[in-house]
Amino acid sequence: MSLQLVIGNKNYSSWSMRPWVLMRQLGIVFDERKLRFDFAEGSDFRRQVAAVSPAGLVPVLLDDGFAVWDTLAITEYLAERFPQAGVWPADARQRARARSLCAEMHGGFGALRRHCAMNIEAALPDVGERLWAEQPALQRDVARLEAMWAEALDASGGPFLFGEFGAADAFYAPVCTRLVSYALPVSDATRAYVRRVLAAPGVAAWIADALAEADFIADEEPYRSSR
Amino acid sequence: MSLQLVIGNKNYSSWSMRPWVLMRQLGIVFDERKLRFDFAEGSDFRRQVAAVSPAGLVPVLLDDGFAVWDTLAITEYLAERFPQAGVWPADARQRARARSLCAEMHGGFGALRRHCAMNIEAALPDVGERLWAEQPALQRDVARLEAMWAEALDASGGPFLFGEFGAADAFYAPVCTRLVSYALPVSDATRAYVRRVLAAPGVAAWIADALAEADFIADEEPYRSSR
Ligand SMILES: N[C@@H](CCC(=O)N[C@@H](CS)C(=O)NCC(=O)O)C(=O)O
Ligand SMILES: N[C@@H](CCC(=O)N[C@@H](CS)C(=O)NCC(=O)O)C(=O)O
Repeated sequence: MSLQLVIGNKNYSSWSMRPWVLMRQLGIVFDERKLRFDFAEGSDFRRQVAAVSPAGLVPVLLDDGFAVWDTLAITEYLAERFPQAGVWPADARQRARARSLCAEMHGGFGALRRHCAMNIEAALPDVGERLWAEQPALQRDVARLEAMWAEALDASGGPFLFGEFGAADAFYAPVCTRLVSYALPVSDATRAYVRRVLAAPGVAAWIADALAEADFIADEEPYRSSR
Repeated sequence: MSLQLVIGNKNYSSWSMRPWVLMRQLGIVFDERKLRFDFAEGSDFRRQVAAVSPAGLVPVLLDDGFAVWDTLAITEYLAERFPQAGVWPADARQRARARSLCAEMHGGFGALRRHCAMNIEAALPDVGERLWAEQPALQRDVARLEAMWAEALDASGGPFLFGEFGAADAFYAPVCTRLVSYALPVSDATRAYVRRVLAAPGVAAWIADALAEADFIADEEPYRSSR
């Protein structure tokens, strides 16, 4: 068996980051295939993604050529394929809670996603300050995040949301990078959790690759005109 | 053990519809608790939802008081709790495929969701015709739907996406009602699948309740000023 994860640019592709850091962190071996973002119709990116997934988005997990697309489906696939890896908590209710958190990320946090596109290498504290003042919905998203993380960490005792690093932490890892990039004002406890996530070896490895990427995709850069 | 599903208005709440029709169709016994939509801050709806789920959205599944929120997490919870019920296909790859389709619905089809809000009792063919002409993204969403359904039905042999009625059909049931309400132009094969979904007893039961509801929620009615 051989697993391949098809991903986008590491600096920008928050959805690609989730299963990548999860697998790396849990010791699940896979190859990576990176496709440089180019959203123009008929681009190489579009053609190569379409060749593996009819949904036309990254990430896509290929298991000996069999395609699983969408982060949540990939996560469940990994949990079934590697039942001992710790993708989800072992306790049924904790597992349900972790899934609620991942699904909430998957379908929600619209303001945070819209206004604070992931951009690992960028330092945008001024943009963050302006957005914070102008966008009450962004403040609401961050308040919900802080409450969610505090509750989970309190229940589990940490250091990660459900104890050991798992899918829920992977789903919020690209949120942790955003809180830093845009320097959004959060509590000390939130900041400490963010630091732990960013220091986890699987997350740190992705970030190192993102920083080394040295690419600039204008479509993903609402706030900069060059690097 | 006792399961309660907290839902919104049956005429409008597409997310509530999904786990409701799934449970009803698969014979999973539950109580329903309906909260009338009212999105004003501090409304009864908001207070009662907040009392059961920190995410503040319906549906919420309560299992002897333990809350699972978000349709995807609820679906996985049901699959674990009722392993024989047929929530997901029995074959691992078919299961992965069904999850990809559900996750794609959960995070995608933005144009269809934005322009064609679920409204079971309404007949809006003129609105549908105008949207179809004006919104290429809506046409793309429907093209993707048709391709996805055709591929799944072809692989399984039908009558539902993965053979018997399961989570994937439940996730697309509120899309089936939209195709009818807005009279969007689709192929005969798509129309036949829509008919089968709407005739499934669990789906038909929800629709009957929606039609009997006789409520009008202005926030959910971009195209009508009264019933
Ligand atoms: N719901 C999907 C979202 C995937 C997604 O939006 N991927 C972006 C990159 S982060 C993409 O492929 N965009 C390409 C495009 O929009 O054409 C998932 O969870 O995997
Ligand atoms: N991702 C969520 C979406 C749930 C959702 O958006 N529910 C709507 C009703 S269909 C809601 O509760 N809206 C209330 C609000 O926006 O305040 C899920 O899959 O359960």
